[in-house]
Amino acid sequence: MLDKELIVSAPGKVILHGEHAVVHGKLALAVALNMRTYLRVGLSADSRVSLNLPNINTFLSWDLSSLKTLMPAYATELQKVDKPDHGLIQQLREFMGVLEGSMENSTLATLAFLYLYVSIFAGSRDWIGITVTVWSELPTGAGLGSSAAYVVCLSAALLSACGVLSCPVNGCQISRWNREELEIINKWAFQGEKIIHGNPSGVDNAVGTWGGALRYLSGDITPLNSVPILRILLTNTQVPRSTKVLVAGVKDKILKFPAITIPVLDSINAISHECEKILGEMATGPTDKHYDVLEELFDINQHHLNVIGVGHPSLDKLCQITLAHGLHSKLTGAGGGGCGITLLRPGTDSITVDKVIKELEDCGYDCWETNIGAPGVQLHCTSSVKEEISEILWTPSSGNQQNL
Amino acid sequence: MLDKELIVSAPGKVILHGEHAVVHGKLALAVALNMRTYLRVGLSADSRVSLNLPNINTFLSWDLSSLKTLMPAYATELQKVDKPDHGLIQQLREFMGVLEGSMENSTLATLAFLYLYVSIFAGSRDWIGITVTVWSELPTGAGLGSSAAYVVCLSAALLSACGVLSCPVNGCQISRWNREELEIINKWAFQGEKIIHGNPSGVDNAVGTWGGALRYLSGDITPLNSVPILRILLTNTQVPRSTKVLVAGVKDKILKFPAITIPVLDSINAISHECEKILGEMATGPTDKHYDVLEELFDINQHHLNVIGVGHPSLDKLCQITLAHGLHSKLTGAGGGGCGITLLRPGTDSITVDKVIKELEDCGYDCWETNIGAPGVQLHCTSSVKEEISEILWTPSSGNQQNL
Repeated sequence: MLDKELIVSAPGKVILHGEHAVVHGKLALAVALNMRTYLRVGLSADSRVSLNLPNINTFLSWDLSSLKTLMPAYATELQKVDKPDHGLIQQLREFMGVLEGSMENSTLATLAFLYLYVSIFAGSRDWIGITVTVWSELPTGAGLGSSAAYVVCLSAALLSACGVLSCPVNGCQISRWNREELEIINKWAFQGEKIIHGNPSGVDNAVGTWGGALRYLSGDITPLNSVPILRILLTNTQVPRSTKVLVAGVKDKILKFPAITIPVLDSINAISHECEKILGEMATGPTDKHYDVLEELFDINQHHLNVIGVGHPSLDKLCQITLAHGLHSKLTGAGGGGCGITLLRPGTDSITVDKVIKELEDCGYDCWETNIGAPGVQLHCTSSVKEEISEILWTPSSGNQQNL
Repeated sequence: MLDKELIVSAPGKVILHGEHAVVHGKLALAVALNMRTYLRVGLSADSRVSLNLPNINTFLSWDLSSLKTLMPAYATELQKVDKPDHGLIQQLREFMGVLEGSMENSTLATLAFLYLYVSIFAGSRDWIGITVTVWSELPTGAGLGSSAAYVVCLSAALLSACGVLSCPVNGCQISRWNREELEIINKWAFQGEKIIHGNPSGVDNAVGTWGGALRYLSGDITPLNSVPILRILLTNTQVPRSTKVLVAGVKDKILKFPAITIPVLDSINAISHECEKILGEMATGPTDKHYDVLEELFDINQHHLNVIGVGHPSLDKLCQITLAHGLHSKLTGAGGGGCGITLLRPGTDSITVDKVIKELEDCGYDCWETNIGAPGVQLHCTSSVKEEISEILWTPSSGNQQNL
């Protein structure tokens, strides 16, 4: 049971290679992005359950007794959760007064929270009032797994708060759960993702949970044993795009020119395999040659992604600007705008990086220097959280709180 | 026998699709480029044989009697020529006082001329003094088949002058030889190409002879039945490159990343096949949709050529500049600099074309608005030759002539 405050965080994700090709049975590599979502949970003094999501200006609070009425008649076996209970979702929608089909971030985030809270606490003897505050470094809707990082944090925090998982904080270190516990976190996070996205692949929550890198092939998700942490620049072109439309466009291109397009998907598949091999080698001793290959794979895949029709002038510009400084980029995710990643070598100096960022920002892009291969969900002690994050997590929200 | 002046011309060539991939057994499409080489041959008044090549400042003249000493002991069967007589080449080198291995344009052009003159006239009863003047619109060494256009013109003119071929000039029209005659011209031109290049593919002389477009696959060269004439912009970036080094680079890439690179060659192969299909359809009725596909194939192949390592920043720039005006380009030939082609639609207005040319010339590139799918070797009457060409072909060269 929760006897003290918990702070957990989970990373975002980027697709390193294999976006779009994965839809056609090819290997994709997803990696944890060290832009994290942080969650603080503490006992509430007033037997209320509160949810604060300052990123999306959402501050809600419910009376514990009203939530109890939603408790499922059965006790969920927390280790064996499989698919969401649609009856409960329906009940929660009615409780929230929300129409089916509402796609608003705030609504979906609240629905996922309430679903996880009620389900996880259903088998608990003591319902407790808690206050949950979540803050993310990830932009939403950019294909960076922000919703997955959110539900991974929720799952880890709620499962810990109700005593299903250990709270392995030991002195003031960042700590992680064991493998079995991470599997339970991932299962519950996947439920949350299904509530938010309908039919997610499960890749985003797996990356958020396990961190590092994982391979995704024909629905099977396998974390890689060991991967290096790589410096990158993440750029959001802010050009809006529809993943659905882009996926359909690739399908159309395959139908229009099968003999031209299918080999390109095969080549992308081989790029993912080559990259997996190189990452494995780099984990034990990265060399300049490894970086040369990673850069070459970026360049080739970026050409391939253009060939299958998911490029965009904003991404071409990103590649041109970075290449002018000797840096190699590719789009990541759906393409057609959205985000790109630029590989930074260990020796890339900060003056170069700053210049590149300046030029990219002058194009109206958002830019973050961060890294990939980051750890998955983790538990923090208060002092291990960056100050700017602490400030947000500890800011009283009562002024904005909407009592329901 | 030559009883009047003859003027012949032959086109250059560009590779439309399949450059580099053809080295690895894939289909390539070569098309005749309507930048032509013109040759004028007339009887000389003084029993001398003269060769004027004003493009490369070469003006030579030999006494007929000295050339007669070079005549092979055997009479060549002109229809069945197969491979060059290396003894004769050696004799001609000695006659010219040229070391083996000399690669100078002027030397090689003279050697090819003397070889063809002596071989073709070997079986003739009457050796005649002639004056040959050749002028080309093609830049040399740019991969545009300028040497092939030269030897095709030489073969056609000399075979006609010695009476082996008809001289089908009929009133003042441009006329062509029949199929059997073109085959003989092509065979002799191939001999000339071998003298100049050592081990040529035979594609360039075939394009110069047959015109239109032809497929080249595993050493087999087949003219396409009917092809449209397409407007293009030909751009020479003037960036020098070594075809050998580029070909070796592609081979290295295949060895380094076989699973990534081989599918790209397969895709290029499919592009050539698709393009062949579209050209066949366009010959009977071109539509906007055909042009859409041609543009798309240009874009895809340009990406592929970059992937296999034969791109160049100068070519990227060419593609960017033309695309900014809605025009699609790809490199043609060896890449790594060299030439690119830009497809122009029938409706592309001259203001746009002029703007694009201006911008390309501002980059230091040479630019020609021309077309592809042009006729092969042809026979002109005097008045069917463009005035600027006539002026050059009829300019007396005696001031420069070097008597040997």
